[in-house]
Amino acid sequence: MTDLRLAMLGLGSVAQAFLRLLAQKSDDLAPHRISLKLVGVATRSRGIAANPAGLDLAQLLEIGAAGQPVDNLNNGRRFADSLEFVQNIQADVLLECITLNPASGQPAIDYISAALQRGLHVITANKSAPAFALARLSDLARRQKKAFLYEATVLDGTPVFSFVRDTLPATKILGFRGILNSTTNFVLTAMEEGLPPEDALRQAQALGIAEANPDYDLDGWDSAAKTAILVNALMSGSTTPDQIARTGIRHLTTRTVIEAARQGRRFKLLSEAVWRDNHPVARVLPRMVPLTNPLAHVSGTSAAITLITDTLGEVTLHLHEGEVPQTAYGLLADLITVIKSHYAK
Amino acid sequence: MTDLRLAMLGLGSVAQAFLRLLAQKSDDLAPHRISLKLVGVATRSRGIAANPAGLDLAQLLEIGAAGQPVDNLNNGRRFADSLEFVQNIQADVLLECITLNPASGQPAIDYISAALQRGLHVITANKSAPAFALARLSDLARRQKKAFLYEATVLDGTPVFSFVRDTLPATKILGFRGILNSTTNFVLTAMEEGLPPEDALRQAQALGIAEANPDYDLDGWDSAAKTAILVNALMSGSTTPDQIARTGIRHLTTRTVIEAARQGRRFKLLSEAVWRDNHPVARVLPRMVPLTNPLAHVSGTSAAITLITDTLGEVTLHLHEGEVPQTAYGLLADLITVIKSHYAK
Repeated sequence: MTDLRLAMLGLGSVAQAFLRLLAQKSDDLAPHRISLKLVGVATRSRGIAANPAGLDLAQLLEIGAAGQPVDNLNNGRRFADSLEFVQNIQADVLLECITLNPASGQPAIDYISAALQRGLHVITANKSAPAFALARLSDLARRQKKAFLYEATVLDGTPVFSFVRDTLPATKILGFRGILNSTTNFVLTAMEEGLPPEDALRQAQALGIAEANPDYDLDGWDSAAKTAILVNALMSGSTTPDQIARTGIRHLTTRTVIEAARQGRRFKLLSEAVWRDNHPVARVLPRMVPLTNPLAHVSGTSAAITLITDTLGEVTLHLHEGEVPQTAYGLLADLITVIKSHYAK
Repeated sequence: MTDLRLAMLGLGSVAQAFLRLLAQKSDDLAPHRISLKLVGVATRSRGIAANPAGLDLAQLLEIGAAGQPVDNLNNGRRFADSLEFVQNIQADVLLECITLNPASGQPAIDYISAALQRGLHVITANKSAPAFALARLSDLARRQKKAFLYEATVLDGTPVFSFVRDTLPATKILGFRGILNSTTNFVLTAMEEGLPPEDALRQAQALGIAEANPDYDLDGWDSAAKTAILVNALMSGSTTPDQIARTGIRHLTTRTVIEAARQGRRFKLLSEAVWRDNHPVARVLPRMVPLTNPLAHVSGTSAAITLITDTLGEVTLHLHEGEVPQTAYGLLADLITVIKSHYAK
C-alpha cells in the first residue's frame, strides 16, 4: 500500500460530497493499493484543521454539514491562513474547492501555483484558475511532472476534458456550442412555462440551484468562465472570462421566450467557440435554438455540450440534471487519473 | 521508428475510409514514432494481396473503389483464403472489417481467435465477434497481453467503450437506452413526416443508408447485435444477439407514428438494458418516447445512447448523422490506443 495524502481547500457542498463519495467508492479504489488520507482542510471562514495522521472524515463531515469551525480537529502544526497551508502542508495532492472569483481568478491561482511548485498534484472544482491561467499552470505542472486537472469545473463533472484527451485521439476540436449554466437554463425553462423572470429566479433560489446573489449567472459570468476553460483546454486558447464577448439573459421577457417557443425555437444561453484566422473566438449569448438541435432539449438543471470535430463531426454530451454529487464525481475521476498515471502498481 | 504491420480482413467502405483517414492523419501519428505498413488485405470475393514491404495504399484504394480484384498487388507468398491469411500473415495488428453474420458471428470469431492466439492485436469494425464471443476473446487477448478493441461497432465510432473505460472510473453502468440503428431511425423519422414505410425504406436505400436487403435492420437484428456488445462490454454480460428479446418496426404504420407524434411522442427503436437479480436484461423494441427525453430528438441517421450510471446519473452521447467516415475513425482511435498502450516511447 502506498500512502496518498490529500489536502483540501474549502469545505463547501462539493468538497463535502467528494468526501462522502470517497467513502462510498472505497471498494473501487482498493485495487490501486493506495491508502488515502486527508491530512488537512483549510476554509475561509471556519478555520483550518490539519493532522499528519489523517483527519477523521465522519467527524469532519458532521462539522462541515453543521457549518461549525473545523479548528478543533487540528492536531499538530497550526497554519495561519490558506496560503501558509498550501505552502507548508505535507501532502501529495491538493484538492482546490474554493469559490469562483470571476474578476481575476485569485487567490486560487496563487494557491495552485504554490502547490504545483512544491510538487503536489492539483485537482480543482473551482473555475478560477483554469479560466484565468490554464496554460501557465499546465506548463508548470508538466515541468514538475505533476497533474493539474479540472474535470469538475464544466458540465458538473461529466467527462469533457478527459473525453477529448483520452477518447478522441488525432482529433481537432473545430468549435463547440454548450449550455453550461444551470441557473439561466432553469430560469429560461420556467419562463417558457409562463413564469415571470423574477419568479423563475426565486424558484431556482428556493431549490438551491441559484445563489443568493445570482448576478454571475444571469449576466453570463459563470458561462464565460466555463467557456474560457473550454477554449483554453480544447482549442489551445489563452483567454480569460473578461475577454469572452458576453450577453446575459436579463433583457429577455417571458413574452419573448414564449413567442419564440411558438415559432419552434427555444431561448438558451449558449457558450460558443469557433476558429477564426487561426485563433479561437468565443462568446456567450442567448440564442433561439431550433427544436431540431439537441441543445433545444436540454432543460432545467441539465447541461450539454456539442463538440464540433474534424473526425466525428458533431458529438453532443448531455448530462441530465447535474447537481453537486456529479461535480464531486469529477474530482474523484481526476483523483483516479492521478493515481493511475503516477502511482500505478 | 518502430515498424507496425497492419493486416486487414475486408475491403468494404469502412476499410477504405480507414485507409484514407490513415493517410490524412499521418501528422497526428508522427509523434508516436511508428511506421505503419499495410502488409496484407484479404477479401471474400476479390482475392488476397500481401506484401511484406507494404502495399501501395493509393493503388489499393483505387482498386478498392473500382471494385476490382486485389490479387495483382500480391508480392510474395500467396494465401488460399482468409483463414490461412490470418493464420500466417506476418503482422502486428489485424483490422477485421468483414460483414456481420447475425446468426452465429462466424467466421469472424475464428479469424480473431486465430490472430490473438498468434499474438496479434485485433481491432474490429464488425459486430460479429464482440456480439457473440466478447468475454472469451477479451480473456484470450488479456492472456496474450494483446488488445481486442471494437469501438467502431456501436454509434459509428463515437467513443462509447473508451468513454466508460477511460473517463468513468469507479462507475457502475446500471443500464442504458439507445438508438443504435440508422435505417430504422431514418425510416421512422420519414414516416413521421407522412411517408409510407416502403417509400421511407426506398429513400434510405437510395441514400445508401439501408442495405439492399434491409431485413436485419427492420427486424431489429442489427440493434440486437449492438445491444449484445454493449451488455457484454459495459455490464459484464455473456449474451448473444439471439438471446436479446427483439421486436422490429415492421408492424408500425405511418398512421400510428403520426398519431403518436400528435400526442407528443416519437416512435424510436430502442435498445435497452437494466440489471435484474444481478443479471443484465436487455431488449430491442419500438417505444413511444416522450419529447422531454433527449432520445426523442435523435433523428434520421443520428444515433445516441443514454448511459445510466451510479456516479453521474444519466449521461447521453449523441452522434449527429454518423456515416462511414465516423465508423472508420473508431478503427483509428482503437489503433492509437494500441500504439499508446503497447508501443509508447
